[in-house]
This record gives sequence, C-alpha cells and structure tokens, in this order.
Amino acid sequence: MSSEKIALTQTVQKGGCAAKVAASELRRILQQVKFPAAHPALLVDGRLFDDAAIYKINDEIALVQTLDFFTPIVDTPKLFGEIAAANALSDVYAMGGKPLTAMGILAFPLATMAEHVIVDVLQGASDKIAEAGANFVGGHSIDDDTLKFGLSVTGFVNPGQAWTNAGANAGDHLILTKALGTGTMTATLKSQHFQEDDIMEALHSMATINNAIDCMTQDLQAAVHAATDITGFGFSGHSMQLANASQVTLRIQTEKLPRFTKTFFCLENSFLTKAHRTNSEYTAANIDVSNLNNLYRLLIHDPQTSGGLLLSVSSEVSHSMVQVLRTRFKSAEIVGEVLPRQDKAVVFE
Amino acid sequence: MSSEKIALTQTVQKGGCAAKVAASELRRILQQVKFPAAHPALLVDGRLFDDAAIYKINDEIALVQTLDFFTPIVDTPKLFGEIAAANALSDVYAMGGKPLTAMGILAFPLATMAEHVIVDVLQGASDKIAEAGANFVGGHSIDDDTLKFGLSVTGFVNPGQAWTNAGANAGDHLILTKALGTGTMTATLKSQHFQEDDIMEALHSMATINNAIDCMTQDLQAAVHAATDITGFGFSGHSMQLANASQVTLRIQTEKLPRFTKTFFCLENSFLTKAHRTNSEYTAANIDVSNLNNLYRLLIHDPQTSGGLLLSVSSEVSHSMVQVLRTRFKSAEIVGEVLPRQDKAVVFE
Repeated sequence: MSSEKIALTQTVQKGGCAAKVAASELRRILQQVKFPAAHPALLVDGRLFDDAAIYKINDEIALVQTLDFFTPIVDTPKLFGEIAAANALSDVYAMGGKPLTAMGILAFPLATMAEHVIVDVLQGASDKIAEAGANFVGGHSIDDDTLKFGLSVTGFVNPGQAWTNAGANAGDHLILTKALGTGTMTATLKSQHFQEDDIMEALHSMATINNAIDCMTQDLQAAVHAATDITGFGFSGHSMQLANASQVTLRIQTEKLPRFTKTFFCLENSFLTKAHRTNSEYTAANIDVSNLNNLYRLLIHDPQTSGGLLLSVSSEVSHSMVQVLRTRFKSAEIVGEVLPRQDKAVVFE
Repeated sequence: MSSEKIALTQTVQKGGCAAKVAASELRRILQQVKFPAAHPALLVDGRLFDDAAIYKINDEIALVQTLDFFTPIVDTPKLFGEIAAANALSDVYAMGGKPLTAMGILAFPLATMAEHVIVDVLQGASDKIAEAGANFVGGHSIDDDTLKFGLSVTGFVNPGQAWTNAGANAGDHLILTKALGTGTMTATLKSQHFQEDDIMEALHSMATINNAIDCMTQDLQAAVHAATDITGFGFSGHSMQLANASQVTLRIQTEKLPRFTKTFFCLENSFLTKAHRTNSEYTAANIDVSNLNNLYRLLIHDPQTSGGLLLSVSSEVSHSMVQVLRTRFKSAEIVGEVLPRQDKAVVFE
C-alpha cells in the first residue's frame, strides 16, 4: 500500500485485549456505581462491561449491542483494522445475532502518524464489516498520543433465539472454534522476536469473523444452548463466566484445546502479557487446574484478541456441528463437556 | 464525594471537542477509504464521522446511531461524566430521536488514577442516561495514559419523522437552544485562570441534555424542518453543514447568538483552542463574515462541547417554539432565517 513501512506495535505500550482493564478491578469499580433498575426490555445486561447487551424491540426483533477497541497488536495497519473489526463484530455472533451497523472509535497521533496508516486501518475495518453483511455508518475520531481503533456494533437477533452464556445444560458438549495463543504470539511481535510473516496462522485467525451462525441450519442453531467468545480474559476467564452464568461445571480436556503451531514455543519462551497473570488471579478460586503443567496453565490464561466462540451444544449434534464449523474454522474442536454444578466452575483435565 | 481533589483538566493536553480531528483532515482521510455502496435501509449516512446515522428497521422504527468520546474539559469527575453523556446523547436528539441504549467508552491510567475518579465519571454518565430515559447497557475500558470517556448511543425515531440537516426551507426561522462559548470558557480552566465555580453557567449548560423534543407538541415537532447540534466545529462549521446539506443560505443576526455572561471576556483574553483556527479555516471559503469584528468571529468559531440544537422551523411557529423551549433551555433564541441558496452557505450580519 505504501512505501513507508511503519510497525504499529512499536508505537504502543500495551496491545489488544491485553490492554483491557482486568475483570476484578473493573468489577470493583462498577459495583460502586449506583445504576438505576434495568428496563424490562433489557434481556441481557452488559453493565459489567464484559459482554454484549440485548434489548428487545418487539417479539421479532432484539438489538444486540457491543463495543470494543484497542491499541495495535500487529504491525500492518490494514491487518490491524481487519482484526479490530473482526474482534468487535464477534460479540454479536456470540449472541447468535447478525451485525447490522458499526461505528468507528478512532484515536491517533495527528501530528506524527502518516495519513495512509489511518486510511488502511479504516479500509481493513470497512472490508470486514462488508464481509459480515453490515454497514459502516459513522464514528468518532480524536487526536491522541497512540493509535487506538475499534467498533461499536449493533446487531439483531430474534429475542427467542438469542444465545447467551447462561443456557448451558449438563450433558452438552463444548466446542471451541479457533485456536488459542494470540496473546503470546502477538507478544513476540511487540518484542520484535518474530515478524508478522512468522505468525501468519494467528493473524489470519484473528482476522476471521466469528460468523458461525451462517454455517448452521435452523436445527443446529437451536442446538446451541450457550455461547461466548474468548477474548481478553482468556479461555479460563470466559469459560468460567459461562459456567457460572449457567450454574454448571465445565470439564475441559485440556489437550484437545486447539492451539497454533507456535503457541507452545512462544509460551515456553516467556512471551507473556500482564493478562496472563491477571487472568490467573481472576479465575484462581473458581477453576481446578491441579492436573495442568505450567505450559497448559499459561495456555488457558492466554488473553485472546478476536478469539473463537465457545459453544455449548446438544451432545447429539456436536460431531455434525464440528464438521460444519470446520468448513469455515479449520481448528474447531470438541474440547469438553458440561456437568451438573460442582464446587469449581471449570475443571481442566 | 471524596477527600482527594483531582483537577482532571490538568491531566490532559487537549480537552473535549477541541481534541476532535479537524473536519478537513478527517474528510481527506475518509475520502481515500473505499467503502462499499450503502445499504438502502441507511436513510442517513454518518460515514463522514460528523453526524449520527439512521438505519430503517421497518416503517415505524429506525435506529439512530451515534458515538462520541473525549478527554476531560472540566475538573470534577462526576461533572465530566455528565457532560460527556449529555454530549453523546445530543446527536440522537438532533435527529428528532429518543435515546434507547448507551455503551461506555472508557480509557484511564489504571496505575495512577484513583478508582473513585472512574466511579464518579460513570455515575455522572449513568445519571444523565437515566434522565434521558435510556439504558446504560455496557461498554469497554482500556488502560491508557490519559482519561477519556464517552458513549455510543442507539436511539429510535419514526423514519418518516426524523430530523436531518438537509430539510431547511427558505423562509424558515433558525433557533439556537444553548449559549455559545464552552470552548473558550473551558480553556480558562485548563490554563487555571478560572476555577469551575467561575464558569458554572457554561458547566450547567454542557450538562443539560438536548431533550427539546419532549417539550414539543406533535405539531411543533413536525414544524422542525432541519436540525443539527453545535459541537466541535462551532456554530460556523455546523451551520455551514446544515446550509450545504439543505442547499440554502442561512442569514444569521450574529448579535442575537446567545452567549454566556463571560464568553466575550474569555475570548478577549485569548483563551483559545486549536479549533478556533481550524474551524475558521474549515469554513473560510463558504461563509461571509465580512461584517463581523474579531470578537464575533471568534465566537462563531468557538468549538462547543455539548452545545445547543440549531433548529430550522416554520416561521409561523418560531415564536411559540422559543417560548416552549425556554422552559428547558433558558438561552433559546431566534438567531436568523433561511434564504434561497446564494453564493455563501452562511451570511453573518
């Protein structure tokens, strides 16, 4: 696109979902705010800032609303725009919805950053929004020290058919649609140990939109009892949230968790983020990792940017579901099952 | 609220809508992005990032979508939250819509900023969202060097009754609902020449939500032919946009433009922002200011944060409209009229 090469990851301190405020700190802050009672039309409340919200307009239409933005985790501007858009759109897909409109959240250093960087970021986002069948309808930009980009997305869903993280049933199988490891792999870029060419597998995955629903028949869609997407709080944090919301326990076959070819290499070489620690702390009291070695512990706490969907589905359809999902998500895998609630939310075996 | 006093304006370089990227720069960037053709349901396209978008769901419901965020322009955290929320909600009101849901955009220095600051910002926003009858449904937060806050807002409007900036008719009267001067007056805070107590009039105005529509009968609502809200591009920039979109010329009685008691004092003493210059440049070719002295020129270019609505209304109802509006907006004033299109978009007399 341009003769001038800029490595975006070198312009920021913290990148991607790893720059997210830790769940425990955020929760402590939000609990001190006196919110009024929620409106009855608010079917799913995202007030804890960690999920999308669903607002019912009428019996056929509910709005799914979500918002996400971050600093660059990759070096190429267009790729950053693609990943930021795929990541923001994901929350709508995680609710079983389809994106309708998107608005840009853009901050950049006006005085020092070349214009083509911004053009490329917006182009990447526009392309992904179009691929999702949605519309890029506006946004807001400010002059800031470091580049940040993301989207506010509105989607729609039939209120009776929305997926939430609260519907998992004992006996369900758990499917994860994307490989784990984007946190540690993008940390190698930041440290300049790897170049983008070395981690294309992870970059491609992050730029893939979580449009699983369009692969599914109506029957398969109805067989999804709960869903969430794996982002900054890692597999550990988001699976724990799903288990707690559904009042069940998840039993994970940790070795079956899909990962990128180089995920373990990157973790072994200690390319870590602050979120590896905070996710471990966030989940410590509520998950059982006694069977895991250190490498697997790092894997489950790895903060994902534009990570996969975790779906809790009827065991009868789980194998056909995985086959269908693999046409779009080659790493999709059955990674565990749902048990009646036990002491811990998630047991890693 | 707290024993520890923090002056938020001292934590940032640029505050409020003055930190907005200048219209001309933004336009140059956006024109290089290849957006796909807009969906027919997109009744108003906000792609140029300077307005809200309207997306038609069916004959009765259209979504109004807007997004705005900025760095602190005032020192008290709760007041900053109130102003940021009122400012973001305003775009929905400017379309004749009513806010439905809001999501928070929050960036703050986790390591150095006291938690109560964030709690207070969110409390201020929550209070204003509730006052608007809308729901605070979630958001996203990141760790960042300087505090930034704003909202993504979704509202609804009957598609046949939406206000846009494109419907002004020759013969209409122009009403401005709030006084001008928030840019220069908040600049006095930043420079520590004034304290918040000295500019309460402007602070109160910025924290006032632009809910003009709830004052109006159905007949008055229908008499509004065009509307916009006055924000970062100043009275000059936003009135020019309305005139160009409507293909008319606005004749402004500049002395009638409402202003705060201390607006001229602040401008005379050169409490200015970068936007005073960029707004002047943005509008230079398209407005006639030959009759204005320097002070009035600064006034019309003053960047507003959470500024008033500029309404183009039937001349028959303009006086009764102003009376009604003054019950909520004490500075509301008829400030000019709409002429058939001439050479310039806006003529200041």
